[in-house]
Amino acid sequence: MSTAAPILLTPGPLTTSARTRQAMMVDWGSWDERFNQLTASVCEQLLGIINGADSHHCVPLQGSGTFAVEAAIGTLVPRDGKVLVLINGAYGKRLAKICEVLGRSFSTFETAEDQPTTAADVERLLRADASVTHVALIHCETSTGILNPLPEIAQVVARHGKHLIVDAMSSFGALAVDAQQVPFDALIAASGKCLEGVPGMGFVFASKEALDNAAGNSHSLAMDLFDQHRYMARTGQWRFTPPTHVVAALHEALLQYHEEGGLPARHQRYADNCQVLLEQMARVGLRSFLPPAIQAPIIVTFHAPKDPRYQFKAFYERVKAKGFILYPGKLTEVETFRVGCIGHVHPADMRAAVAAIAEALREMEVTEI
Amino acid sequence: MSTAAPILLTPGPLTTSARTRQAMMVDWGSWDERFNQLTASVCEQLLGIINGADSHHCVPLQGSGTFAVEAAIGTLVPRDGKVLVLINGAYGKRLAKICEVLGRSFSTFETAEDQPTTAADVERLLRADASVTHVALIHCETSTGILNPLPEIAQVVARHGKHLIVDAMSSFGALAVDAQQVPFDALIAASGKCLEGVPGMGFVFASKEALDNAAGNSHSLAMDLFDQHRYMARTGQWRFTPPTHVVAALHEALLQYHEEGGLPARHQRYADNCQVLLEQMARVGLRSFLPPAIQAPIIVTFHAPKDPRYQFKAFYERVKAKGFILYPGKLTEVETFRVGCIGHVHPADMRAAVAAIAEALREMEVTEI
Ligand SMILES: Cc1ncc(COP(=O)(O)O)c(C=O)c1O
Ligand SMILES: Cc1ncc(COP(=O)(O)O)c(C=O)c1O
Repeated sequence: MSTAAPILLTPGPLTTSARTRQAMMVDWGSWDERFNQLTASVCEQLLGIINGADSHHCVPLQGSGTFAVEAAIGTLVPRDGKVLVLINGAYGKRLAKICEVLGRSFSTFETAEDQPTTAADVERLLRADASVTHVALIHCETSTGILNPLPEIAQVVARHGKHLIVDAMSSFGALAVDAQQVPFDALIAASGKCLEGVPGMGFVFASKEALDNAAGNSHSLAMDLFDQHRYMARTGQWRFTPPTHVVAALHEALLQYHEEGGLPARHQRYADNCQVLLEQMARVGLRSFLPPAIQAPIIVTFHAPKDPRYQFKAFYERVKAKGFILYPGKLTEVETFRVGCIGHVHPADMRAAVAAIAEALREMEVTEI
Repeated sequence: MSTAAPILLTPGPLTTSARTRQAMMVDWGSWDERFNQLTASVCEQLLGIINGADSHHCVPLQGSGTFAVEAAIGTLVPRDGKVLVLINGAYGKRLAKICEVLGRSFSTFETAEDQPTTAADVERLLRADASVTHVALIHCETSTGILNPLPEIAQVVARHGKHLIVDAMSSFGALAVDAQQVPFDALIAASGKCLEGVPGMGFVFASKEALDNAAGNSHSLAMDLFDQHRYMARTGQWRFTPPTHVVAALHEALLQYHEEGGLPARHQRYADNCQVLLEQMARVGLRSFLPPAIQAPIIVTFHAPKDPRYQFKAFYERVKAKGFILYPGKLTEVETFRVGCIGHVHPADMRAAVAAIAEALREMEVTEI
């Protein structure tokens, strides 16, 4: 067994750089001016990534990504609104579940897990139901790694005068979105994904107009993004205790993001990781679930070997002992496992990971792949 | 100016040990068995502190302490319940605000900020309103540092067959509560207070009976403690991405908590900090807002000097330059500032802090105190 900490090939938490973790060695006062500056710098850098400083507010929120998604829906969809939820995987289903629990009226449109939602689908759906006020979409559906055509869908939604809420949790920072080209009311992501921070906070890019009109919508005190933003705009501080170390780590991760070359460089590294992964896995005989055209360079779903000697748990443990943490599949119909391309990992790591996978399968005498 | 990081004399985030921060230097996979063990160990240790393993579940929750308070109210108070909120400060007011936003019916009982709520008050209030189902209380009201008589109030609430929800955010781990002696449905605290972890997660001790009957109460998906617990009991995992580094830090902080001698030792150190602080400040002429009998050894509110040359902002900056971060007052009627006694700090630090405070006042030529 390797003594070094294993490399996480998971879609967050993921492998961070030592420098990012090192930023957590300081205790910050949450009321202190220097910490306020850290928060302001994080928000400014985040807005820069989507070119959204003029049109959007960045509202950070304590908690995991789901908290930020729920907060966006609860704050931005009025109580008498209606959400059209586009689903092709587990995170799309979660959007619908959130609407249900919050008591927001909603309808769903579900395609197969290897089938992106198309702009034509959305066009048709919006024509058929004028009562829809908001459309909710997953950008990269992490349960398979499928990419939904956000720019095209955003155009259709805008043309109908409807509001778009995008869960870009697993894609933000790696797949370009320009807020001046792609109209949306909210786009949601988190610290511990493609920005390579540690988990513990999410953030919502909310259009200024939508947020300014959102007073009193929220079902929750802690998740009220209107209040959170207003308080922060007035005081420079988070409304409730911020995860100070997580914020400091994200700030440091963003500095490295820019040093690396920003979004184009981050995207390229992940695309290289993904290509190496697909090529090397193909040599072992492992087939990816999605065709290349709809595969985002974020996480890849592979069909599990058919061999009865294959069992995910034993396979996982063997690969882990060789230094790599894999991710289980999330499909109900087909047996799969997943390998993330994101985090502080490079093509050489992907090569080494596939070598470990091949070795594990050999040790398990899995021959029928 | 001191070059070392300043010592935080704030009620969370606070000063942590280097060993606790060092625990954040590892990236944990949230799906990995070793991380599940870390979570299980944290919950087990937390339950041990209140002697609650038989009677209560420990449900950790992502986010700040307020998220856990809101989650407890939303999950444990049925939609047709009614909460009697006991208020003598800002955090009590926040409980009422949460009930209001969540649409739970509630009434309030407010005493002055230097006036604990008494068991006799609660007795009278419960007699007068049979429709109350739950009583909500702040243990140590951090806005002043006042201690409310939890054991006595808990007995009255139980005698009336009502349910008690305790926000013990700033006291848990330092002020003893034995779940076998003090009946409560929920007691809420967080990682970054007297346990000396970093901020980023809360936890709720929920009575097994109350939680088991709480399906479907919650107004929120992310803050549904029933779901959170059920999922964790079944899988060993958090329902949504956990703040892995925060959990690892809390685990390490708990090990040190036990090494130090557990609750009695932690309480004694904070009591010593508090005593040294009060004595030394009295020598400077600075008077505490609360009488000793109702002062919890958590945070002390001091009257601001009357001298017109005193201004909190300038005072704060001078003391910070000498290595100590103070906390602003939270009273509306009287000008005050606060000094925390909690965190990885010792009586010698308190002595040094007061020396810095005295020096700052001298430099500012504040004479009328
Ligand atoms: C697309 C998407 N949405 C939402 C989430 C939920 O985030 P979290 O687990 O941080 O709550 C994830 C997490 O991986 C995700 O990939
Ligand atoms: C008694 C009490 N309740 C609630 C809170 C809120 O916690 P947070 O700021 O982590 O949301 C605090 C914070 O200091 C507190 O002292």
